[in-house]
Amino acid sequence: MKKTKLWQKDYNLDKQVEDFTVGDDYIFDADLVKYDCLASIAHAKMLGKIAILNEEEVILLEKELNRIIDLSENKQFTLLKEQEDCHTAIENHLTEHLGEVGKKIHTARSRNDQVLTALRLYYKDQLTDSIGLIDKIVESILTFIDNYGHINFPGLTHFRKAMPSSMKMWAGSFCDSMSDNRKLLEFSFDLIDQSPLGTGAGYGIPLDIDRKFTAQYLGFAKVQNNPVYAQNSRGKFESTIIHAFSQILFDINKIATDLLFFSKEEIGYVEIPNKLSTGSSIMPHKKNPDVLELLRAKYHVVVSYEFQIKSMMANLVSGYNRDVQLTKESTIKTFKISQNCMRIISLVFEQIKVNEENCKRDMTEEIYAIHEVYRLVEKGIPFREAYRTVSKKFF
Amino acid sequence: MKKTKLWQKDYNLDKQVEDFTVGDDYIFDADLVKYDCLASIAHAKMLGKIAILNEEEVILLEKELNRIIDLSENKQFTLLKEQEDCHTAIENHLTEHLGEVGKKIHTARSRNDQVLTALRLYYKDQLTDSIGLIDKIVESILTFIDNYGHINFPGLTHFRKAMPSSMKMWAGSFCDSMSDNRKLLEFSFDLIDQSPLGTGAGYGIPLDIDRKFTAQYLGFAKVQNNPVYAQNSRGKFESTIIHAFSQILFDINKIATDLLFFSKEEIGYVEIPNKLSTGSSIMPHKKNPDVLELLRAKYHVVVSYEFQIKSMMANLVSGYNRDVQLTKESTIKTFKISQNCMRIISLVFEQIKVNEENCKRDMTEEIYAIHEVYRLVEKGIPFREAYRTVSKKFF
Amino acid sequence: MKKTKLWQKDYNLDKQVEDFTVGDDYIFDADLVKYDCLASIAHAKMLGKIAILNEEEVILLEKELNRIIDLSENKQFTLLKEQEDCHTAIENHLTEHLGEVGKKIHTARSRNDQVLTALRLYYKDQLTDSIGLIDKIVESILTFIDNYGHINFPGLTHFRKAMPSSMKMWAGSFCDSMSDNRKLLEFSFDLIDQSPLGTGAGYGIPLDIDRKFTAQYLGFAKVQNNPVYAQNSRGKFESTIIHAFSQILFDINKIATDLLFFSKEEIGYVEIPNKLSTGSSIMPHKKNPDVLELLRAKYHVVVSYEFQIKSMMANLVSGYNRDVQLTKESTIKTFKISQNCMRIISLVFEQIKVNEENCKRDMTEEIYAIHEVYRLVEKGIPFREAYRTVSKKFF
Amino acid sequence: MKKTKLWQKDYNLDKQVEDFTVGDDYIFDADLVKYDCLASIAHAKMLGKIAILNEEEVILLEKELNRIIDLSENKQFTLLKEQEDCHTAIENHLTEHLGEVGKKIHTARSRNDQVLTALRLYYKDQLTDSIGLIDKIVESILTFIDNYGHINFPGLTHFRKAMPSSMKMWAGSFCDSMSDNRKLLEFSFDLIDQSPLGTGAGYGIPLDIDRKFTAQYLGFAKVQNNPVYAQNSRGKFESTIIHAFSQILFDINKIATDLLFFSKEEIGYVEIPNKLSTGSSIMPHKKNPDVLELLRAKYHVVVSYEFQIKSMMANLVSGYNRDVQLTKESTIKTFKISQNCMRIISLVFEQIKVNEENCKRDMTEEIYAIHEVYRLVEKGIPFREAYRTVSKKFF
Repeated sequence: MKKTKLWQKDYNLDKQVEDFTVGDDYIFDADLVKYDCLASIAHAKMLGKIAILNEEEVILLEKELNRIIDLSENKQFTLLKEQEDCHTAIENHLTEHLGEVGKKIHTARSRNDQVLTALRLYYKDQLTDSIGLIDKIVESILTFIDNYGHINFPGLTHFRKAMPSSMKMWAGSFCDSMSDNRKLLEFSFDLIDQSPLGTGAGYGIPLDIDRKFTAQYLGFAKVQNNPVYAQNSRGKFESTIIHAFSQILFDINKIATDLLFFSKEEIGYVEIPNKLSTGSSIMPHKKNPDVLELLRAKYHVVVSYEFQIKSMMANLVSGYNRDVQLTKESTIKTFKISQNCMRIISLVFEQIKVNEENCKRDMTEEIYAIHEVYRLVEKGIPFREAYRTVSKKFF
Repeated sequence: MKKTKLWQKDYNLDKQVEDFTVGDDYIFDADLVKYDCLASIAHAKMLGKIAILNEEEVILLEKELNRIIDLSENKQFTLLKEQEDCHTAIENHLTEHLGEVGKKIHTARSRNDQVLTALRLYYKDQLTDSIGLIDKIVESILTFIDNYGHINFPGLTHFRKAMPSSMKMWAGSFCDSMSDNRKLLEFSFDLIDQSPLGTGAGYGIPLDIDRKFTAQYLGFAKVQNNPVYAQNSRGKFESTIIHAFSQILFDINKIATDLLFFSKEEIGYVEIPNKLSTGSSIMPHKKNPDVLELLRAKYHVVVSYEFQIKSMMANLVSGYNRDVQLTKESTIKTFKISQNCMRIISLVFEQIKVNEENCKRDMTEEIYAIHEVYRLVEKGIPFREAYRTVSKKFF
Repeated sequence: MKKTKLWQKDYNLDKQVEDFTVGDDYIFDADLVKYDCLASIAHAKMLGKIAILNEEEVILLEKELNRIIDLSENKQFTLLKEQEDCHTAIENHLTEHLGEVGKKIHTARSRNDQVLTALRLYYKDQLTDSIGLIDKIVESILTFIDNYGHINFPGLTHFRKAMPSSMKMWAGSFCDSMSDNRKLLEFSFDLIDQSPLGTGAGYGIPLDIDRKFTAQYLGFAKVQNNPVYAQNSRGKFESTIIHAFSQILFDINKIATDLLFFSKEEIGYVEIPNKLSTGSSIMPHKKNPDVLELLRAKYHVVVSYEFQIKSMMANLVSGYNRDVQLTKESTIKTFKISQNCMRIISLVFEQIKVNEENCKRDMTEEIYAIHEVYRLVEKGIPFREAYRTVSKKFF
Repeated sequence: MKKTKLWQKDYNLDKQVEDFTVGDDYIFDADLVKYDCLASIAHAKMLGKIAILNEEEVILLEKELNRIIDLSENKQFTLLKEQEDCHTAIENHLTEHLGEVGKKIHTARSRNDQVLTALRLYYKDQLTDSIGLIDKIVESILTFIDNYGHINFPGLTHFRKAMPSSMKMWAGSFCDSMSDNRKLLEFSFDLIDQSPLGTGAGYGIPLDIDRKFTAQYLGFAKVQNNPVYAQNSRGKFESTIIHAFSQILFDINKIATDLLFFSKEEIGYVEIPNKLSTGSSIMPHKKNPDVLELLRAKYHVVVSYEFQIKSMMANLVSGYNRDVQLTKESTIKTFKISQNCMRIISLVFEQIKVNEENCKRDMTEEIYAIHEVYRLVEKGIPFREAYRTVSKKFF
């Protein structure tokens, strides 16, 4: 047992446990301060409406909460590890600056519904921003098509030359796909657009609160009535959101994979400009397409986040379980990674150039084989026979 | 090298390769025969419209394709491994029974768009059936609430007694969640409701075909115009569909987890009837809740299918890659597993009984602690102070 | 409620539940009959040793169990869905053919330890077979190197021409990697090589049984003493086994990806023979590398099985949970898929041809840039300066 | 196009691309500085041995590299985003402080083998530390067994009372499991214990370097000969390491799940001390087992990292691909998360108390049903009949 005690010296027991439970929430919560303040303002106004706070108290709270938003936007509202999360930091700030009133703000709510509300407001903003980024991608693709859409090159099946394709057909496929992805984002937005504020710890609040008021004030489309569902939907909603982003990154993964091939030395359909390339530490001739490789790889990061949440939230009973707190990091990172990739892929479409000569060079005879078949079909020969006739030329 | 030859005796080289490439498609395709025939009828009519087939040929094809549907529904249209898939089997059948006309049916289409079309029609039917099953679950839950909704029991947070809940609140949460899941199914339906027929191998058909006609005839909401996107959306669409089902199974996983706890000997809020239980091979007293455990476990199977597809389809260039064929098994199994679980969970809600006594027994004093806090709040004591006052009773 | 009854007509309640709980075990268990019989023989002999069975009974049981093995090998011992699994079928068979003695075979064991034992014996055989298949792959690669190892071609970094590589260096990398994979298989074998027989349902057997005897008789390296660990290791052991196979398939995935690129029309370093290719239904010129694409894709199937098990077995209390039964399908399929791919990749190395001309064609000046740098280094110029000097030639 | 330009104002193009490619390596590399310096010392000595550096230069380099190690350990060697990674920062530092000699250190190596070497040395240390933490866990469990092992409580199957278990049997199962996990760590250590230094960018170094010397100097068990395998093993080795840790966290997940149940109010076999608990923001009576819930949840984070790498590295050609750089974060985080959980679970076993009364209370008659069966068996009644006789008492 001596060894145990030696080891205990190295680690302060309580500090260790505290560090473990707090985790990195105090870092990730920087993005949530604004939303928690907005939700607290709505909550304070509602408490005023049902006479738990008086008019003056509501005004004080609103003013101070708005001040916190300003401080936060100027990076002057720092969250310390000791404060655990933004919710504690904000309540502490209010009590410190407003006294008694600060101690009243948590009436009729729990940290559980408070976190849910702040996150959902944040998600809605992130989804709206991301829809804007999709529009930007589509715009960049359309400009690319304006410039290069007319150029033909061999379309592939089984990674083998198949039939004539064109830059318009290729790039256009991602316009259509991104437009379907946009619908996924919109669907996710609508799905989560329900106010959890007032569901308390997950079993409602035994006071006569006005949930419609806060929902409307915060711009939610409706109230999420069932308090157990409010809790159980955490993780669930996140997984649908991350799935939506995984679809955007899937397309970006494919664009990157295509471009890595199109710009390979032996192919050369597309040129990656120097500013999207990096060098090698050892080979002086290298111009490496790191940007494309990273765009390809990031998809897998986001997919793993979806899987993490789907695995983590399973086999758990209803109601709040602390496990759910770990979904925060993966969701916030999904937004950051995805929006980054969305900005970069727009840049890529703006910067790449198509080499018409190289495209033409590869439009060889065999990719027109099917056209020959159809010429025979038009002469009345059944398709399968025409196919076999043309086939003999190649085997 | 002797060893190689010995080993080669055991395995016929060509047979081995053939087995490997064909896989189990000939088994999974049993469900697709009907949809491939329907799509072929639409295709034949369109070929008639653009004068590649004459009127008589169209009538012959339609009649024979309808006959195949009948045969298939009576399990008389068997697919052999040698036929590789249902598409080959159907074309072969047509040529065998109709001669020349059979050889014409594949004009202006490729197996690539043919598979996509059959799958999409099949998916649409599966999604519609599944929406019906969701309604059935909601109905079963509502009946459960009619019978037992009034009974209170302790709601949990952190797997610890927190505040009063009720069977209505608990079961109702799954009504709301299933109703959101229903929207996910509907969204998936709308997303995929675009006709790929006529996109050929992924680069269009160099003939003047009428894609709107086949789309309308088959009941698609629109034409999926871009042929590259038609190919690239395979895997993508499947992953959104499987995500939708994963959300349904997630709720079922939670219901099962809750019921496993509610029916534990020491808890006893809920009784699992004998017909939903199995015995032990060694312990004569056991009544095991296998059904609930399997409902819990199946979620993970479906989630793994989603990630299989998401991982498999990545890092691949645009256009058809054979890898995509492997998404068939996981998608078809997702439908079968999910619908099975949906039927069983309805049964479960119909069969379980709530034990009011046991529920009452556990409604102990501490779960009303928050009510006591609010009584102090109503007397004007700030929430945080009231909280601390009541807190002292417990620590 | 009318609707419910209508629906109930379609599905026989008990039948539905039975189908759901039995699942497909009766199919997968076909491979386990032999191992369950072997374990039952060991168990019978042990029961004889501790005088629960008399000598004659042991002989009868051993004889009949050996007969079942014979029947099973000749596909004459069929498992019916009603029998649920092979363990029930075998016990029933014994009772039917031997009367009273059959009813004694289950003394001092539970289906839980019985399943564990049969699976583990089966796993050990599968791992041994797979080690043999690795040796076969290495042998095929060495032959390939004998034939083509001397041919140089450009090695890639960032999917761009980097420095001279060779067929020996390329193929040799997979020899080394497969040899490390072999160690993973051996490690997995050693890890699971402990006898669970006698741990009963997971809490031991309250009789004085001889676990060392059965362990030795069955060829296990040791007894798995702790009965709770015996149960908890299910799923855990499987995940290590599947991880090992995922590493083999990862290499096969990379070989296939390399070969798909090496055999692309514009590259042509390697030729895929016709017998490893398939055609297109529409384009008469196509020669598609389906085999390679499927080899690439199968990796993802096996990885998804690993994650299925890792997700499914988590968040569960100690002791047998029925969920674990679902790990059977994914583990058995992992063996079948992996061994299939291992056989095919050997074939591939035996069948492909290297085109020396094409390889030489691409050995262009820039891939020797680093050599030029080192020539300057040898003249005394610091590396980083020499690098910059040579660099200027390319930018 | 106006919109594009507006948007471009918000983001500096080159800055954006730079930020995207650099990522967070400069943060994660803090842990690698020491290992890169050690490897650079070995490399310098080898360059001395083959007369590329003179004796004095080697001494200078060794001294300065040791100084960087010291600076780094005192947090005085900070890595800036502009420096991209520790390798650049170290080479720059050497050139700045030593002039010409600094420019020579990169002779005969590439950043590719340099990164591999630093990571592998770091991994080896992490694995060794983790083996120590496993020993610590086992020690804590043994102490727990010393104190409480004699106490019996009902073992569960199907989450239902099955047969008598004991704290010794329960906790002991994790000793055995951790001891098997230890073997997995040792295996991982042995697997990766091969020196990649000297493989350059993945195709060797065209100079006569002494790879055995650096391997021995750095304490590697052997040289990883094939340069292509050196590159291809990145991601692969990491996935085996993370798999090993996932197995440790799997056991911790199960311990936490068990303890969450054992300490539930209605069960009370185990008491979680206050210092391992947290409170609720709203319910004054709550004592929440956050520590256990987080220990349970962290498993899923690590599993998702394994999946991320397995998915990310697939479908890529041989040789360095930039995607691999993203495996750094998930691997380093796996070490940090796992070691944290390992320390905490030791604490948990040291802090929890077993409540003998509550355990005894639940040792009810039915869990001895199997004992009754065996009493009948000992009287000569065949097992299956005895089972049926006792069974009648319960149904």
